[in-house]
Amino acid sequence: MEFKEPSNNQLKKWRKLLQGKYRKQENQFLAEGLRCVDQIIQQKKVIVTEILVERNSEVIGALSIKDIPVYELGQSDFESVSDTETPQGVIAVCNTPAESDMEKLSKKEGLIVAFDAIQDPGNLGTMIRTSSWFEASGLLIGHGTVDPFHPKVVRSTAGATGAISYRKADLHSELLQLEESGWNISILDGSENAISLKSADKTGRDILVIGNEGNGVNPKLLQNRRAVKIPGNSNNVESLNAAIALSIALYQFSGK
Amino acid sequence: MEFKEPSNNQLKKWRKLLQGKYRKQENQFLAEGLRCVDQIIQQKKVIVTEILVERNSEVIGALSIKDIPVYELGQSDFESVSDTETPQGVIAVCNTPAESDMEKLSKKEGLIVAFDAIQDPGNLGTMIRTSSWFEASGLLIGHGTVDPFHPKVVRSTAGATGAISYRKADLHSELLQLEESGWNISILDGSENAISLKSADKTGRDILVIGNEGNGVNPKLLQNRRAVKIPGNSNNVESLNAAIALSIALYQFSGK
Repeated sequence: MEFKEPSNNQLKKWRKLLQGKYRKQENQFLAEGLRCVDQIIQQKKVIVTEILVERNSEVIGALSIKDIPVYELGQSDFESVSDTETPQGVIAVCNTPAESDMEKLSKKEGLIVAFDAIQDPGNLGTMIRTSSWFEASGLLIGHGTVDPFHPKVVRSTAGATGAISYRKADLHSELLQLEESGWNISILDGSENAISLKSADKTGRDILVIGNEGNGVNPKLLQNRRAVKIPGNSNNVESLNAAIALSIALYQFSGK
Repeated sequence: MEFKEPSNNQLKKWRKLLQGKYRKQENQFLAEGLRCVDQIIQQKKVIVTEILVERNSEVIGALSIKDIPVYELGQSDFESVSDTETPQGVIAVCNTPAESDMEKLSKKEGLIVAFDAIQDPGNLGTMIRTSSWFEASGLLIGHGTVDPFHPKVVRSTAGATGAISYRKADLHSELLQLEESGWNISILDGSENAISLKSADKTGRDILVIGNEGNGVNPKLLQNRRAVKIPGNSNNVESLNAAIALSIALYQFSGK
């Protein structure tokens, strides 16, 4: 395989993609790690513009790359673009997929996942990965939620980034809109009034709302809506991790 | 509340508990963070011998502590005992609960979770937390699995540490023994021969085996045993995170 030499300007640009404001400005993001890059290439849902490999890394042999320029970076240059403590030697520079419009998202049947202020990148990535496994039809990224194209989120999706339509949304107004067009909302919440997930019927047009890791879902969103809880014993442990709770609900609600 | 001053020897001892070999030698471990410490105290399944608070931290007011000596540490001393980058100001020094013997574990009805070479502390902690939520009756900690009393594991259990009987086990021989006494094993594995979790009957004496994050369950353990997979679309993403897969299986297998 033939490697290209990056220019200083290219290096500078890639490095900047570690920051949210530049990702937004450039409409690009970084996907790091063999498994993640491999899956993104195979899946073909995200356009990869460049592959960056660390000099002497053997990881490149494991990838089947066609028509994508591959740049070789020295160790310190590679580390300056990497977001991890122990880089695996491969990074893909990708075009950010466009957001879905509301109309498209709401016309479909399916299962939508709405994130309300999810702050931990690893948690969000895992939830996108699991949503993808269960073929969710859309993601609503509510305010206060970490950027879904943050390098750690992307890494935690294990290649599922871009597999599902998404939009950044004001959940307060957009959930109302979706309800008006016939979608049914289940808020994952452990409170007393919540019904058990096992008795929560699915309708084919369902929205699961998952809230902040520490504080749960914003009480405003809960008003007059169905709260659903995962049955379990809260004497031993107060609650489930947000990604775990969502996954169990996805399993229950998915058509599989 | 009255605070004690720690001696240098005490500080040295607590610091050493960050290392596995000293945890084993002293039969003690550290639990860090308000939520985790609070839950461990309330739960009363683990004996807390000392509480350490950072000077001027207000966190102590949120805890109801009786009959446990509370030591106040200056910032740098506290940080030297802490395992986190941004300490929350409270650590509990706890006695490690004794391992269950095989006889006790295998006599019970219930749901046992066996960990085969789980390496990520956060993953193991989340799995113990979830196992506790679903009232698993026992945990088998297979070789190659991170120490369940590692500070990060303990933090990730969110206070569930000690809630479930456990033993460190050679899974190869102990699973055979359990089978002989009538337990039924389901190996979580995404391979083609696996049956869908939805069609996996529970028997009341079930063991779920979850394998290494990257490599899955050791093939030796799989031989002649039932493999179970979570139904889903592996085109979008190759697999589920180990903690997610186990949680969904626990939901399906638990009596709730």
